[in-house]
Amino acid sequence: EERPPPRGLTAPTVAAGAIAKKWLAEHFGVKIRGYMSQLGPIVIPFQSWDEVENNPFYAPNADVVPELEAYMDALRKDGDSIGARIEVIAENVPAGLGEPIYARIDAEIAYAMMGLNAVKGVEIGAGFESVSQRGSEHGDALTPDGFESNHAGGILGGISTGQNIEVSLAIKPTSSIRIKRPSINQAGEPVEVQTLGRHDPCVGIRATPIAESLLAIVIMDQLLRQRAQCGSDWLETKEQE
Amino acid sequence: EERPPPRGLTAPTVAAGAIAKKWLAEHFGVKIRGYMSQLGPIVIPFQSWDEVENNPFYAPNADVVPELEAYMDALRKDGDSIGARIEVIAENVPAGLGEPIYARIDAEIAYAMMGLNAVKGVEIGAGFESVSQRGSEHGDALTPDGFESNHAGGILGGISTGQNIEVSLAIKPTSSIRIKRPSINQAGEPVEVQTLGRHDPCVGIRATPIAESLLAIVIMDQLLRQRAQCGSDWLETKEQE
Repeated sequence: EERPPPRGLTAPTVAAGAIAKKWLAEHFGVKIRGYMSQLGPIVIPFQSWDEVENNPFYAPNADVVPELEAYMDALRKDGDSIGARIEVIAENVPAGLGEPIYARIDAEIAYAMMGLNAVKGVEIGAGFESVSQRGSEHGDALTPDGFESNHAGGILGGISTGQNIEVSLAIKPTSSIRIKRPSINQAGEPVEVQTLGRHDPCVGIRATPIAESLLAIVIMDQLLRQRAQCGSDWLETKEQE
Repeated sequence: EERPPPRGLTAPTVAAGAIAKKWLAEHFGVKIRGYMSQLGPIVIPFQSWDEVENNPFYAPNADVVPELEAYMDALRKDGDSIGARIEVIAENVPAGLGEPIYARIDAEIAYAMMGLNAVKGVEIGAGFESVSQRGSEHGDALTPDGFESNHAGGILGGISTGQNIEVSLAIKPTSSIRIKRPSINQAGEPVEVQTLGRHDPCVGIRATPIAESLLAIVIMDQLLRQRAQCGSDWLETKEQE
């Protein structure tokens, strides 16, 4: 049985994200960019932002693109799908956005990202690497010239620190695959499900612009609430910094 | 300088969580339990739920407890701190809780968990392992006897499947440590910060009951909204299942 591809909030999210990105850039010089850092078993070392728009994977590394293409071609022949890891980074975010208990900016980012279909994990900064880090390693030393590292991913205690906000996402493999899968019908009897038609073997490839938009919307929303609470003066002072 | 330990929403969260756990257990037989699966470099293999309450780490494995104790003693002498990984599992959750776009149960869980101090990562089901999984491996086969695996962690498309809801948390190492850390004062001059007084070298040790409470509150909230939308009949039908 062929079914139309699922439709959700992708188009409106990216449209709203474009407005948020523009507003953030004009007022604060905030820059929000994302890239794919892993496709299935293939880790993609970061080389340059300039490469991200030059390939359909949003990979920041030209050298690895032929390997990604070959992997996807083989996967498509198998009728299977694969997961991916996406990084999203916001630069020049003013310090002080968020709150320590309610309206935490890290919680709002996690809500937005986990709400994106196929996302099964969200990290901020060091994420799950924090588990095996000592405090003397994880803590970002502060000097007169700024922080010496960014394990916090730009957020401490629910509030932005002024460092880059760094978010990682785990995207699961597409569930609609050509390989037959065991399932049951409405009577509870065993059936096989095979999904034909046009389905991306890796939804992660399309996730980068959506994740960028979600991060932009959360940050702009925080800034508008900050303005509501602190007045336009606060915004103008921050803009001039 | 000695400062009082930070106070937050721990006590009210655990109090509300106790009520939510009781209500969920009485109405649906929902059981919510958590444990520590990793302390710094030490992975704690799951052995038995019965062990969790027998040691101060919430470790589900008696054999590893002496190693954990020795590690913490050495860490305390170093004046350092360490991260941890916590698992929280909800059993017997009715299928159908949540929505596909707004009020997704996975997004609400991520919001609650990332809002807990020191959490830097949240996974549902296979989490970041999904990145390298193929669709034919990740997808949970459905048979007349139920699902054959639970990579989804009990949630698909923002809605509970009736399988166990499985959540993992990355807890960063405590920032308040005795080892002197570089920082700056209000004039922007370099200073060293040393935190004395009573501070847990691993806040992750205290996180398990709080994470259980947060999961209970999210699930009960979803059930009450389901009742508001579908009426008490829905709730009673589900209770009898």
